[in-house]
Amino acid sequence: MSILVVGSVAFDSLKTPFGEKERILGGSATYFSVAASFFTDVRVVAVVGDDFGPEDEAVFRERDVDISDLERVKGQRSFFWKGEYGYDLNVAHTLDTQLNVFADFKPKLSNAARETPYLFLGNIQPQLQAEVREQVRARLVAADTMNYWIESTPEQLSDMLKRIDILIINDSEARALAGEANRVRAARRILSMGPSRLVVKRGEYGAAMFSEESFFATPAYPLEEVFDPTGAGDSFAGGFMGYLAATNATDDGALRRAIIYGSVMASFNVEEFGCERLRRLTYEEINARFKQLRAFSHFEESEMPRRLKK
Amino acid sequence: MSILVVGSVAFDSLKTPFGEKERILGGSATYFSVAASFFTDVRVVAVVGDDFGPEDEAVFRERDVDISDLERVKGQRSFFWKGEYGYDLNVAHTLDTQLNVFADFKPKLSNAARETPYLFLGNIQPQLQAEVREQVRARLVAADTMNYWIESTPEQLSDMLKRIDILIINDSEARALAGEANRVRAARRILSMGPSRLVVKRGEYGAAMFSEESFFATPAYPLEEVFDPTGAGDSFAGGFMGYLAATNATDDGALRRAIIYGSVMASFNVEEFGCERLRRLTYEEINARFKQLRAFSHFEESEMPRRLKK
Repeated sequence: MSILVVGSVAFDSLKTPFGEKERILGGSATYFSVAASFFTDVRVVAVVGDDFGPEDEAVFRERDVDISDLERVKGQRSFFWKGEYGYDLNVAHTLDTQLNVFADFKPKLSNAARETPYLFLGNIQPQLQAEVREQVRARLVAADTMNYWIESTPEQLSDMLKRIDILIINDSEARALAGEANRVRAARRILSMGPSRLVVKRGEYGAAMFSEESFFATPAYPLEEVFDPTGAGDSFAGGFMGYLAATNATDDGALRRAIIYGSVMASFNVEEFGCERLRRLTYEEINARFKQLRAFSHFEESEMPRRLKK
Repeated sequence: MSILVVGSVAFDSLKTPFGEKERILGGSATYFSVAASFFTDVRVVAVVGDDFGPEDEAVFRERDVDISDLERVKGQRSFFWKGEYGYDLNVAHTLDTQLNVFADFKPKLSNAARETPYLFLGNIQPQLQAEVREQVRARLVAADTMNYWIESTPEQLSDMLKRIDILIINDSEARALAGEANRVRAARRILSMGPSRLVVKRGEYGAAMFSEESFFATPAYPLEEVFDPTGAGDSFAGGFMGYLAATNATDDGALRRAIIYGSVMASFNVEEFGCERLRRLTYEEINARFKQLRAFSHFEESEMPRRLKK
């Protein structure tokens, strides 16, 4: 099955403790689609400006990502984000955000896009997410959001949440959305808002999945160098949705393996700036890291040794 | 096999968002020994004052914990700690610490204590930990420490680390001890300081174990109510060492299961104030939560679906 992703295709200027890069290709739809493209066919709905050039297009083309629904606006520039990461790479500090073409973005979907069975709503305005969702005959819909929308457009967000199956957000977003410090109660509250599954990205601690009747958690792949965390969440979502769409399975076992593939894709993505690492990735590398995560988290059953009290 | 623990037997005044308690029995050796007593015989080396009464002694006696090496000092009071937890229960704010009998504590070990095969050095002055370690013919030695010793007695701590097999500390302590933000590099650096295994307690995120050649991590048991986090780390260490001593096994598989039993004991301990929950605990409850943690973290093998590029 194929995937439709709506989100940003953008340029990022990044500074990490390991170096800096000016105006490299980024955006939620970019990271998502490159990651998901290893698993299945992906179509991108987004908007770019004149600054989106042939070398940017090549990132999608070399992964056979369909960009026929990518809108190009003449005389304007693409979405731009400038950010910096400190010693603790979990927190991004935004230095500049220029919406540019995104200020008036109204997603126009082709007929092919409307028929896509798997849909991922990247982190954009919740009202746009809801509008796209209504146009697509998807059998499974997942979405991301962020603190900005939780604080500034809670009603639109609440409306969007009623229309999706899976919400994929990070730990602090989950607590903010629920208004609840305890992570288990926060998850329960979010599940009452609409989605039947909540996937929580926990950075260096891995990821967890909650539903009304089940819980699953995996550690992150242990990395000695997290070079650039930009796009980790979207690469995760790309691996997650990519596996589900490729297998067309949404049972609990498939969702668990999807979490592992998401973790694997995110772990590769952060090893280099932008999409550089994902562009060089091989199936053998993905498979090897999947097996390693299994070895890192599994243990044998045991009956507790009972102490005989005197 | 039996365990010797040296640490504090103390009184704590605690305030959490859920309530407060004055002068309840606590201390690292108390939580550790009650948790470990479900698995094997435990002997406590510690010091208390006149305020340690029959109802406190009963906590050890009802669990058949050997307190014949518990020193009692007439005319003085036991170690006292007053602390408060805020909205985020991971961080304890110390309001008062009174060393009392602990100020001049020189552990005196009986002959039986010196022959104990498993030794846990609870969080006390590293020099005392090293002195106790030298007196015990243990086949396996684990230790805890805290930021206070990392900052104030780094040389004593460095000396102690050379004499132990397993260091069991929390996430922020590991990063402080290594002087390294990346958790994998921090672990590697700590392993170069002496211990062959590092166990990192990650609170609501679970626990991880590092050695030169292996990595293991488990999520925490998901709790909707963390009532009182005091003693979670020592209950973890008690379950961990208790399982290893009971089975007299230290291979990687046994160490993984020990981490799970540690996580289980910690998860019960935080459900009520002090040792109350552990005192009522049953083997059936421990076994059930072990099985649940396995169900929460395991997933099936998978070969990645390969997308056929056009």
